[in-house]
Amino acid sequence: MLTRQQLIEQIKQKRSFLCVGLDTDIDKIPAFLKDYPDPIFEFNKRIIDATRDLCIAYKPNAAFYERHGIPGLQSLIRTSEYLPKDCLSIIDAKRGDIGNTSGMYAKAFFDKEATGMDFDAITVAPYMGHDSVTPFLAFEGKWVILLALTSSAGSKDFQYLDVNGGTLYETVIQKANTWAGADRLMYVVGATKSNEFTNIRKYAPDNFLLVPGIGAQGGSLEDVCKYGMTKDCGLIVNSSRAIIYASSGEGFAEAARAEALKVQQQMEAELEKAGVI
Amino acid sequence: MLTRQQLIEQIKQKRSFLCVGLDTDIDKIPAFLKDYPDPIFEFNKRIIDATRDLCIAYKPNAAFYERHGIPGLQSLIRTSEYLPKDCLSIIDAKRGDIGNTSGMYAKAFFDKEATGMDFDAITVAPYMGHDSVTPFLAFEGKWVILLALTSSAGSKDFQYLDVNGGTLYETVIQKANTWAGADRLMYVVGATKSNEFTNIRKYAPDNFLLVPGIGAQGGSLEDVCKYGMTKDCGLIVNSSRAIIYASSGEGFAEAARAEALKVQQQMEAELEKAGVI
Repeated sequence: MLTRQQLIEQIKQKRSFLCVGLDTDIDKIPAFLKDYPDPIFEFNKRIIDATRDLCIAYKPNAAFYERHGIPGLQSLIRTSEYLPKDCLSIIDAKRGDIGNTSGMYAKAFFDKEATGMDFDAITVAPYMGHDSVTPFLAFEGKWVILLALTSSAGSKDFQYLDVNGGTLYETVIQKANTWAGADRLMYVVGATKSNEFTNIRKYAPDNFLLVPGIGAQGGSLEDVCKYGMTKDCGLIVNSSRAIIYASSGEGFAEAARAEALKVQQQMEAELEKAGVI
Repeated sequence: MLTRQQLIEQIKQKRSFLCVGLDTDIDKIPAFLKDYPDPIFEFNKRIIDATRDLCIAYKPNAAFYERHGIPGLQSLIRTSEYLPKDCLSIIDAKRGDIGNTSGMYAKAFFDKEATGMDFDAITVAPYMGHDSVTPFLAFEGKWVILLALTSSAGSKDFQYLDVNGGTLYETVIQKANTWAGADRLMYVVGATKSNEFTNIRKYAPDNFLLVPGIGAQGGSLEDVCKYGMTKDCGLIVNSSRAIIYASSGEGFAEAARAEALKVQQQMEAELEKAGVI
């Protein structure tokens, strides 16, 4: 469990606001790992060992584990147990349902006794409104990361709709700000939307933003920082494929480290430029 | 796998459009079942055996299984395998993510070889737009049931927002209608919104609507039918708690059957009144 203050300290200490996305795809990991009893966990373990001093968060994507049924859930539970306590552990699950059901999803990912998983934070979809989100907040110290403006083409279908003289995603942020403060609530904002970050900071001046879309999806780290960084950093920038699949050979973990180091160094420069460190 | 035509035939033959919601809560099932190796599956199996001639669909709610980790997923897989082939099997999972991730969720619930689960339909959240929904439709013959207007208080936060001179939920339906036809796409519309059904039928004249909120949540079957039924019925009305927890004793399955029968008889009368049968 990381408080907002602890998260900021981690960022300053590691000079990084990198989240490594564990979108671990059995078809993309090095072939030799398939000789291990749990290849996906073995891959994650080595990626974590190679990058843990360079990043401040890990984010397994639930779908990549669920698609394997029981063994996939086992890999996810093992990964959850292995994640370093000084990093924010985020389950990217995009859940959301009526109150009692959201409460069950919260149990699934937050209650170690119930499932073996003990994530610090979960991504949540906003469409069903407050009672689909607040059951996650009822777990003390846990974070909700609410979808605001996502990175793919489909974000244009609804998130930019004209609402109340603004856009739907602005209304989502304004409304959600009444449910919890910046110490419990973050927003997902895609890196491919760097021109929107100035606007988002009008509505979420202090919230951390979880930013996917750097690397494979084409977002620019420099632009995200220029328009989105706050005095406390306020950004957790995710990279998945560009880091974890940097090489498909025996040396994949070292290659991942080299990629993560490159990103960390860019992040360090941005943190210095903005006076955060 | 049920086509639209097969679904309509089932409704006419069984004189029912009841979906039994398998929101199976370990804290609410009869105590004696806890002596079985898989109490949740044992409960579901008996509920299914007792109701299968009275309903045309079953809908396990994923959260109730996920909250138990590996054993919960095992119960869900066993339940999926046990569901009768003449009923529509719906996984109420409310997933939705960028394209490749939604594809993985589709695999999780639609691909028997991958996970042991082979549901006919899945509930999907619309916020991330077309590329979060179409990967589910890429599985031939499978159904997407998209959230439109949900039954709980939180539905007021975003779904009724003014958009394009109408509401957000209307825009969701209009847009989604361009992604698939009524042979692959249904909408979730809460029974507590019976005054909205006339309006919804303007935008979704032929789509089946999955209607939760009858019973424990207070929706009226008569009103739903009055404003929402089409010449092909066009409704799948879900009841969970009122049926499956009708009794907590040894005779729980018979009590569930008695409740399901009451609802089926009301449904038969509505189908006759509307001239569907």
